[in-house]
Amino acid sequence: MGAEIELTERLARLFGADGRGVVVGIGDDAAVVRTGPRTVLTTDPVVAGVHFEPDTPLRLVGQKAVNRNLSDLAAMGATADYLLVSVLLPAKMSPRQRQSLFLGIRTAARRGSCQVVGGDVAVTPGPLVVTVTAVGRAPARPLTRSGLRPGHHLHVTGSLGGAATGHHLRFRPRLREGRWLAGQRAVSAAIDISDGLLLDLWRMLRASGGLVGAVLEARAIPVRWAARELSRRSGRSALEHALGDGEDHELLFGVRPGGRLGVGGPLTQRARRPIGEVTAKPGLFLRTADGGLERRRPEGYEHDV
Amino acid sequence: MGAEIELTERLARLFGADGRGVVVGIGDDAAVVRTGPRTVLTTDPVVAGVHFEPDTPLRLVGQKAVNRNLSDLAAMGATADYLLVSVLLPAKMSPRQRQSLFLGIRTAARRGSCQVVGGDVAVTPGPLVVTVTAVGRAPARPLTRSGLRPGHHLHVTGSLGGAATGHHLRFRPRLREGRWLAGQRAVSAAIDISDGLLLDLWRMLRASGGLVGAVLEARAIPVRWAARELSRRSGRSALEHALGDGEDHELLFGVRPGGRLGVGGPLTQRARRPIGEVTAKPGLFLRTADGGLERRRPEGYEHDV
Repeated sequence: MGAEIELTERLARLFGADGRGVVVGIGDDAAVVRTGPRTVLTTDPVVAGVHFEPDTPLRLVGQKAVNRNLSDLAAMGATADYLLVSVLLPAKMSPRQRQSLFLGIRTAARRGSCQVVGGDVAVTPGPLVVTVTAVGRAPARPLTRSGLRPGHHLHVTGSLGGAATGHHLRFRPRLREGRWLAGQRAVSAAIDISDGLLLDLWRMLRASGGLVGAVLEARAIPVRWAARELSRRSGRSALEHALGDGEDHELLFGVRPGGRLGVGGPLTQRARRPIGEVTAKPGLFLRTADGGLERRRPEGYEHDV
Repeated sequence: MGAEIELTERLARLFGADGRGVVVGIGDDAAVVRTGPRTVLTTDPVVAGVHFEPDTPLRLVGQKAVNRNLSDLAAMGATADYLLVSVLLPAKMSPRQRQSLFLGIRTAARRGSCQVVGGDVAVTPGPLVVTVTAVGRAPARPLTRSGLRPGHHLHVTGSLGGAATGHHLRFRPRLREGRWLAGQRAVSAAIDISDGLLLDLWRMLRASGGLVGAVLEARAIPVRWAARELSRRSGRSALEHALGDGEDHELLFGVRPGGRLGVGGPLTQRARRPIGEVTAKPGLFLRTADGGLERRRPEGYEHDV
C-alpha cells in the first residue's frame, strides 16, 4: 500500500496536470476535464515480452505506450488533449527504472501537446504493462476506416517496413497529418497502420462494406530504410517487409477520384502520390514491378517478440 | 493476429455500441462520442493474482473490472456514459472463459447504464489483465476529496469490512448515491473507499490541506456481516476489518456543520447518521465503545492475494 500511495503522489508531482482544460487532475478518484461536443477515445496497452523486448530502455517503452494511442487519435483526425495511464510495475523494477518509464510517458505527452490527467500504479509480480487511454477533440468530420469506394486512390504518410529494428519505439504519431487530412474534402477514409499495410488495408476494405478490393503498386510503395537492412538478415525482400511488418504507425488514407489535396500542409510529396487504388473486384492484389498481378492474403505482423 | 481480429469483431458484436451518444463505436481506430462541457475520466486495472484469485469466475472478474471504475465516477458525483476495455488474455484461456469475461463486462456496463465503445484485446503469456477506462458527465459541482474542514461530519453509504470474502467481486457502484450527493449543498467532499476506511479517510484529510484530523466513533461504524464472519477466522475484531479492509467501494463523504441532507433520495437512514467528525487537531483517532480515544495509523488493505 505504502508503495502505491507514494507512486501516485510521485505521478502527481511528475505530471502535475493542472494546465488548460483540467478541472480536477491526478490525485482524486477521477479526473474532470473540459471537453467539446464530440470526444475521441482510444486505449491500447504495451506489455513486456509482447510489445517490446524486456531489455528495452524504459524511457522508450513509456514513449511507445503513449504514441501508440496518439497514432490512433491521429487516424481519426483528432487533437490529443488528455491521457490516463495505468501502469503495472513488476516488483523488481528499481525506482530509477520507474522514473525512466514515467519520464518517457511525460516526454511523449508533451510532444503530443497533451496532459496526463489520471493514472493508476500497481505493483504486481509482472510483466510490466502500460495501458494508456488517450482523449481528444473530434474534428467536424472524423476520419474513419469505412469510406473507401471503387476508384479511390490509396496513400500513406511515410515509408513502411522494418519497424521492429527500432522505429516501433521511436515513431512520431502523425497527429498534424491526421488533422490536416480530416479537413480535406477529398479524403474518404484513414487508418493507423499498426499491423502491416496489407492487413490494415484489408480492415479498411471490410469496414467499407467488404464489396471492394484493392490493387497496390509495388513500385509506388515507400520502403523504409530499415526494411532494406532487415531484408539482408531475414532473407525476405524489403518490399515484403513493407507490406507485412507491423508498427509502422503511418496513416493509410483514401482520396476520392478527381479529389485534390490542398496545397501546403504537412504531407510529403511522396505521400501525395498514390500507392494503389480501390477496385470493385474484391480481394487484395499487388501489381509487381514487371506488371504482373499477384493475389495477396491480408497477412500482417503478429505481436510476439 | 488472426486471434486478435476475431476477438475484436466478437467484441463489436457483443457490445455493439451504437446507442445514444455514440458517433463511431468499436471497430475503428478510436471511438467518437458525444460529450458535455465537462467530462470525468478514470482508469483502473484488475490483474489475476493481485485483484482476484486465479480461480474466480470470469463473469465476476469482468464485472469487478467495470465496477471499480464506475465506483470512482460515483465518488465524483458523475454519470457513467462510456467504457473502453483493454484485455490481456492468457493464451491458455478457452473461448468459453473469454465469453464469460466479456459477458461480465457487458452485464456491469448495462447495470451502470453505460456503453462499451472501444477496446483492445491482445493474447499474452499472462496473467489476465482487464483495464477499464470509464468516461462520464461531470455534475455542475463535482465532488472531490479536498473539501473537508474542521467540524464537518463524516458519513458512509453502506457497511464496511470483509469485502475479500466476496463483496469485492459483487459490489454495486454507488452511482445513484454519488449523483444525489453531488446535488446536495451540504456535502463537502467524497471518496470511494477502495483501500480501507482509515487509509481513504487519511487521503481525504491530506487532500483537504492536511491541517485537519478526524475522530471516528467505533459504535457508529456500520460493520458488514461478512466482516463479522471473517473475524471468527482471522482473530481480528469485526471493527478492525471495517476500519482496515479494502474494496468496500462505499462512498465516504463529508457534511458541513449545520448542513442538512435533502429528504428522499437513495441514502439509507444509517448513511444519514455520521460515523465521525473532522477536527482541527491533525491525526486519525477512534473513540472506542468505552469512550477512550485511540490514535490510529492510516493503514489499509494491501492488494495481494
